[in-house]
Amino acid sequence: MDATDLARYRRAADYLAVAMIYLRDNVLLREPLRPEHVKPRLLGHWGTCPGITFVHAGLNRLVARTGQRTLLVTGPGHGAPANHANLWLEGTHEEFDPALTRDAAGMAELVRRFSWPGGFPSHLSPQVPGVLHEGGELGYALATAFGAAFDDPGLLVTCIVGDGEAETGPTAGAWHSPKFLDPATSGAVLPVLHLNGYKIASPTVYGAMSDAELTAYFEGVGWEPTIVDVTTGPDADEPDAALARALDAAHERIGSIQRAYRVVPVGGEPREEESGPRWPVLLVRSPKGWGAPAHDVDGNPLESTFHAHQVPVEGVADDPRALRLLEDWLRSYRPEELFTADGEPVPEVLAVPPRGDLRLGMVPQANGGTLRRPLPLPELRPYAVDVPAPGAVEAGPTPVLGRWLADLLRATEERRDFRIVCPDELASNKLDAVLEATGRAFTWPLQQPAAGYSEGLSRSGRVLETLSEHNCQGWLQGYLLTGRHGLFPCYEAFVSIVDGMVNQYAKFLKTAGEVPWRAPLASLNYLLTSEGWRQEHNGYSHQGPGFINQVLQKKSSVARVHLPPDANTLLVTMEHVLDSTDRINVVVAGKQSSAQWLTLEQARDHVAAGGGVWEWAGNGDEPGRDPDVVLACAGGIPTVETLAAAWLLRREAPDLRVRVVNVVDLLAFSPPERHPHGAGAAEFTAWFGTACPVVVDFHGYPSAVHEVLHGRPDPTRFHVKGYVEEGTTTTPYDLLASNGVSRHDLAAEAVRRAAENGWPGPAERLAGRFADERERIRAGVRRAGEDPEEITGWRWSAGREPVPGATAAVP
Amino acid sequence: MDATDLARYRRAADYLAVAMIYLRDNVLLREPLRPEHVKPRLLGHWGTCPGITFVHAGLNRLVARTGQRTLLVTGPGHGAPANHANLWLEGTHEEFDPALTRDAAGMAELVRRFSWPGGFPSHLSPQVPGVLHEGGELGYALATAFGAAFDDPGLLVTCIVGDGEAETGPTAGAWHSPKFLDPATSGAVLPVLHLNGYKIASPTVYGAMSDAELTAYFEGVGWEPTIVDVTTGPDADEPDAALARALDAAHERIGSIQRAYRVVPVGGEPREEESGPRWPVLLVRSPKGWGAPAHDVDGNPLESTFHAHQVPVEGVADDPRALRLLEDWLRSYRPEELFTADGEPVPEVLAVPPRGDLRLGMVPQANGGTLRRPLPLPELRPYAVDVPAPGAVEAGPTPVLGRWLADLLRATEERRDFRIVCPDELASNKLDAVLEATGRAFTWPLQQPAAGYSEGLSRSGRVLETLSEHNCQGWLQGYLLTGRHGLFPCYEAFVSIVDGMVNQYAKFLKTAGEVPWRAPLASLNYLLTSEGWRQEHNGYSHQGPGFINQVLQKKSSVARVHLPPDANTLLVTMEHVLDSTDRINVVVAGKQSSAQWLTLEQARDHVAAGGGVWEWAGNGDEPGRDPDVVLACAGGIPTVETLAAAWLLRREAPDLRVRVVNVVDLLAFSPPERHPHGAGAAEFTAWFGTACPVVVDFHGYPSAVHEVLHGRPDPTRFHVKGYVEEGTTTTPYDLLASNGVSRHDLAAEAVRRAAENGWPGPAERLAGRFADERERIRAGVRRAGEDPEEITGWRWSAGREPVPGATAAVP
Repeated sequence: MDATDLARYRRAADYLAVAMIYLRDNVLLREPLRPEHVKPRLLGHWGTCPGITFVHAGLNRLVARTGQRTLLVTGPGHGAPANHANLWLEGTHEEFDPALTRDAAGMAELVRRFSWPGGFPSHLSPQVPGVLHEGGELGYALATAFGAAFDDPGLLVTCIVGDGEAETGPTAGAWHSPKFLDPATSGAVLPVLHLNGYKIASPTVYGAMSDAELTAYFEGVGWEPTIVDVTTGPDADEPDAALARALDAAHERIGSIQRAYRVVPVGGEPREEESGPRWPVLLVRSPKGWGAPAHDVDGNPLESTFHAHQVPVEGVADDPRALRLLEDWLRSYRPEELFTADGEPVPEVLAVPPRGDLRLGMVPQANGGTLRRPLPLPELRPYAVDVPAPGAVEAGPTPVLGRWLADLLRATEERRDFRIVCPDELASNKLDAVLEATGRAFTWPLQQPAAGYSEGLSRSGRVLETLSEHNCQGWLQGYLLTGRHGLFPCYEAFVSIVDGMVNQYAKFLKTAGEVPWRAPLASLNYLLTSEGWRQEHNGYSHQGPGFINQVLQKKSSVARVHLPPDANTLLVTMEHVLDSTDRINVVVAGKQSSAQWLTLEQARDHVAAGGGVWEWAGNGDEPGRDPDVVLACAGGIPTVETLAAAWLLRREAPDLRVRVVNVVDLLAFSPPERHPHGAGAAEFTAWFGTACPVVVDFHGYPSAVHEVLHGRPDPTRFHVKGYVEEGTTTTPYDLLASNGVSRHDLAAEAVRRAAENGWPGPAERLAGRFADERERIRAGVRRAGEDPEEITGWRWSAGREPVPGATAAVP
Repeated sequence: MDATDLARYRRAADYLAVAMIYLRDNVLLREPLRPEHVKPRLLGHWGTCPGITFVHAGLNRLVARTGQRTLLVTGPGHGAPANHANLWLEGTHEEFDPALTRDAAGMAELVRRFSWPGGFPSHLSPQVPGVLHEGGELGYALATAFGAAFDDPGLLVTCIVGDGEAETGPTAGAWHSPKFLDPATSGAVLPVLHLNGYKIASPTVYGAMSDAELTAYFEGVGWEPTIVDVTTGPDADEPDAALARALDAAHERIGSIQRAYRVVPVGGEPREEESGPRWPVLLVRSPKGWGAPAHDVDGNPLESTFHAHQVPVEGVADDPRALRLLEDWLRSYRPEELFTADGEPVPEVLAVPPRGDLRLGMVPQANGGTLRRPLPLPELRPYAVDVPAPGAVEAGPTPVLGRWLADLLRATEERRDFRIVCPDELASNKLDAVLEATGRAFTWPLQQPAAGYSEGLSRSGRVLETLSEHNCQGWLQGYLLTGRHGLFPCYEAFVSIVDGMVNQYAKFLKTAGEVPWRAPLASLNYLLTSEGWRQEHNGYSHQGPGFINQVLQKKSSVARVHLPPDANTLLVTMEHVLDSTDRINVVVAGKQSSAQWLTLEQARDHVAAGGGVWEWAGNGDEPGRDPDVVLACAGGIPTVETLAAAWLLRREAPDLRVRVVNVVDLLAFSPPERHPHGAGAAEFTAWFGTACPVVVDFHGYPSAVHEVLHGRPDPTRFHVKGYVEEGTTTTPYDLLASNGVSRHDLAAEAVRRAAENGWPGPAERLAGRFADERERIRAGVRRAGEDPEEITGWRWSAGREPVPGATAAVP
């Protein structure tokens, strides 16, 4: 095919896009346009549509010519009419929906259905074939595209980045992604920065940059930029030819890089480039709203200005001049040359797109669930901690997990479908065992001597570490969406950086779950560690458990929150979440060595139930009868404090009947009619009784527990303690006490609540004694460390006193 | 002073920083170092400290030589020991705390207090003079620095950006900030990208870039970069001289840019540069952990590797070799040459820093509250909507507000201490009236023809619009922190992009409020509009009220959430929040024309009370007696639906006693002991009765209301409806119905709850009728718009039916 074919094809797609925005009837303009042919409410964004089609058409040619399997990630998701038009023309739409045939009826249905109640949303969404990125909240297309390319060496991912989106920080940071992509084992990303010059109401930053500035910028990052400017000069006269040349050259360049890294000389090392792989990037300048009328009926400019961003010609229902302008615009594409009398695209148009799975809408990676294979998860047994009695041994949960993850990385060495992303915290989070199984991906040559020292870097490493939560999240999303698996360990306090991305991803999952042809994806799994309670050294800025609240706002079909209290429950939890699909799993776990409570078998039962009574930790408790007070805990550190509080109560108030409940699945608090993980009524009563007070020590903000308790009978008997935004650089004990959740605070709260509930013991006297002890410790802490273990607080907590509940240790 | 003085000064500061990390005693090394001189727990980050001091020393020389008022924003806040050391040496610390005198006692106190319970946190924090940015969560220093420079033409803001931080998206996006800064009316930002090559465990991305790549990158963005590399070559031998030359040249270059833009030729326009102002940026390569021992006791490398990131020499308490290595390291600075026998810095060291308010720790802008002047807020009256009766007129809340804001911009034209930041949505949010009073700031020349068209751009404009929520937030934070005022209007759904930044800013405010010498700052004010309920056209990705939940997690001293239901309440609310200090105010308001309910006077009373009974909207309600049901609402669209539901109930169930309550201050739901805005018990009862059911229609997630209700007696009688994550591109009515909050849903809920509470009416029959009506409308919506007004839904809601409550309209 030649440039004429592409231009004709684009006319067809552009015509359909305009029609989708405006028309409800007479979509082939077989009669003069009348007001009743126009939708009552005009929605859509024309401005970016012709550019998307320009790229789509060029890719059609490239793919048809080379057979290159190509996934298109469209950053400007509001240009959905363009994607729809191309999907319809290439026949993808009719593959998924028989109503969208390539004839007059199908076209009318497509046009009417766009941006219509019950039809296609106005932005890209999971309902649209070929789409794995919505582009509603801008900034994440580029990182997502790289995620799709990792470990898929045969794939080319083309990513359209709008020049509005380019202003976002996440996009600006994502341009460095090639430094983490191995040309040998991964596919390629060809970004197309689409510079149409304008966002909603202004010129864009990147549109305002000169060719020289753009070239310097991208060369500085390490790209090889090519400018295709169809707004002026010779390329404006033959845009398709210009883009075709650029795409061909880019494709050749990509092949040459890949060959350089993939072809291993006999008996030698792979040939490497000394300056790092300099991938091509296309910088395409095209007019905003290309093809729209130059002016509106009052002479105000439209095409090539931001006035073409949304619906360029307004007032068509009321103003006959505007209606005529729209009709002229539509007819300027000469639809009669593009579609047959039956509304079928003419053969010359149909000839442009590639065939079968090479069509951009049909590439299997865009429906990644179809490619997903369950992970070969190692048996847990060899990694489990041997726990002869509760509290009898110590271990670090994440170090234990790290060894298991290392073997999972080994087991997937050939498949290469599991990755870990992390913002430079893998070692800090004590997961560094995984680095014995793989390396930290890095492709760029190191500067000598300034940054020449390294450990564990590897071009093909499957750990992606960079100090950008946005890149970690975007890369992982792209990886999961194309059928692979992954884990995102993160400092708990800083994962909120990606709140916005998680909002959007949760929406994608929820909606994709309603689309019958979308296959399930591996879940998005977070491991939040370096928890706030152990950020007593880094201080207040490093404390923040709000991500739990953030995830709880999501649909119950999507959100899960797990708080394994020790290493074995963490192993079982991680096995579960890595085997699950279509969820956002938040797992909170500690990294420090601490007392262990459950054997692997007990952990399996506990995780399966979501929580349960720890009889060995209570006192005088009888099943079926309310105790005086329930001490409930969720989270590793709350578990230790609660067990210590129970031990204090056994010692100081032996007649107080105390039940200890540990909750590992936060949603178990929820009524089952509100969340599928909610504990049944009988179970809930077995845990928390019917009318007794429950003192809950929660890892995060108390509001999260109140939220999940909503709908349970009499929630006011639950007294939830947790992080209340008090913190600085101090000791762990002092940090707990500042927030009212030290063992002494919990014990005091327990006796007071029990007394309110009728327990006749000396509640106030005991509470005072607990408070005195607390202040004695805090004063010691501030006295500047006469006792180092007391200063560091936590060791005091876990080691100095008899281990609560461990039979041998109870006095 | 010459380079020798600077080197000596740096030795003193570096010595103090090492001492702070390690020592509790013998801080001047007057005796051999023994284990008991070492802190029991070693905290701190040495890696970045010497680089911070290197820059600080160079700035001292520059400021002392030129008298240039200079604010230092330190991105790597974990290098706090360096800042402390410099503040102590320049005498700032003793200005704020008499215990920190520049003698042996003060030095011992400084060293001991660092990273100690009750002492200085290990990171920068509001307790530290000169600090307005913590740097705990990385990425925001650069944008904050620009915020500090806007509209302060005499100020130089130097910003140290670590090469770890540089990997973040927000920092990458912030490099474009100069394109929004007017050299004539604003100060200058001199960024120092500190390339020490490593983050926690790896080389950094920017450290791995070659000089040529770095130069191209920054020139591409529009900077004039200068590399100072003290890791190798001639500059390594005389680092201070090299930095001094670079700083002098940068300062001269800044002056020359400023003169070019500020000197107006007689009778002419200001002289402009055609290529935009190309500000200097320094790229400083220095060894990681510069000055640390080259190797640890086992021969592993320390200096110039990431092993120097935190506490380089480990095990000093147990290993005599390590203790000796530490002592050798400390003595390598030759403290006896730096401090007198009394522990005072020697005169040559004292001579380096500038004097008085020119000291980097004393610059007034770092305690911006001292510079803040209350805004000259225009009287509201001329802008208020005339509301003869509830619902009798329509108006758009944000357009009304926009006219008032325009006059506020005019009133501050000379003072230039009020700005609006917005992610390219000002016009879309219908606040474009402000553009009649000022322009959108943009300094860069536009590309012709690709992006040559513009409206309302102005070099000195005080509206900052860019498609980067991170830049908006960072700029505004810097602006507020230096004593100015501002407003951040944003699409509701996308403000979650800055959740992480808001977490950190809330912590800064909370902690600053506990520091006696910190003066109050103007509040951080959000105006969230284009609310999810009106994103029926953009669809699901544009719907998300979670920012309210995010803010509710903050301290009650900080967080406020306002939901003005109409234009006059919005005016009163905005007057209040722009006059408040030290808060994070979230204001949610509509932009579409809609019915107005309150006169200005009523709005003043309503906002002051936080909510109240709207008697005119209820039916058969008597003060002091519980009605059959309370219909409560919070938010503009819930107010309309609730009033419509009340109207339906008056028509269909005239004997049902209904009270309508509107809540404008979300925290009024809270018990007063939990939040200062909580309504008193009597008021709460007057609004919600004592035992009757309350159906709450809330703007956001129902969980937010449950959260604030916590602690009120019997919260289970509150049945909260709101956004439950159901949405797509549809009509406003259908979107409401999908989430169960259409007027018909509310009316049905009301009769059912009233019946449960003893109302004898035909609840199920009525509820069924309401449900039928709802489905009839939804079917009509889907039938493809036989009635355009019904299709668009909201006009149907607000206009077609008699306006609820308006006397004239009630049938």
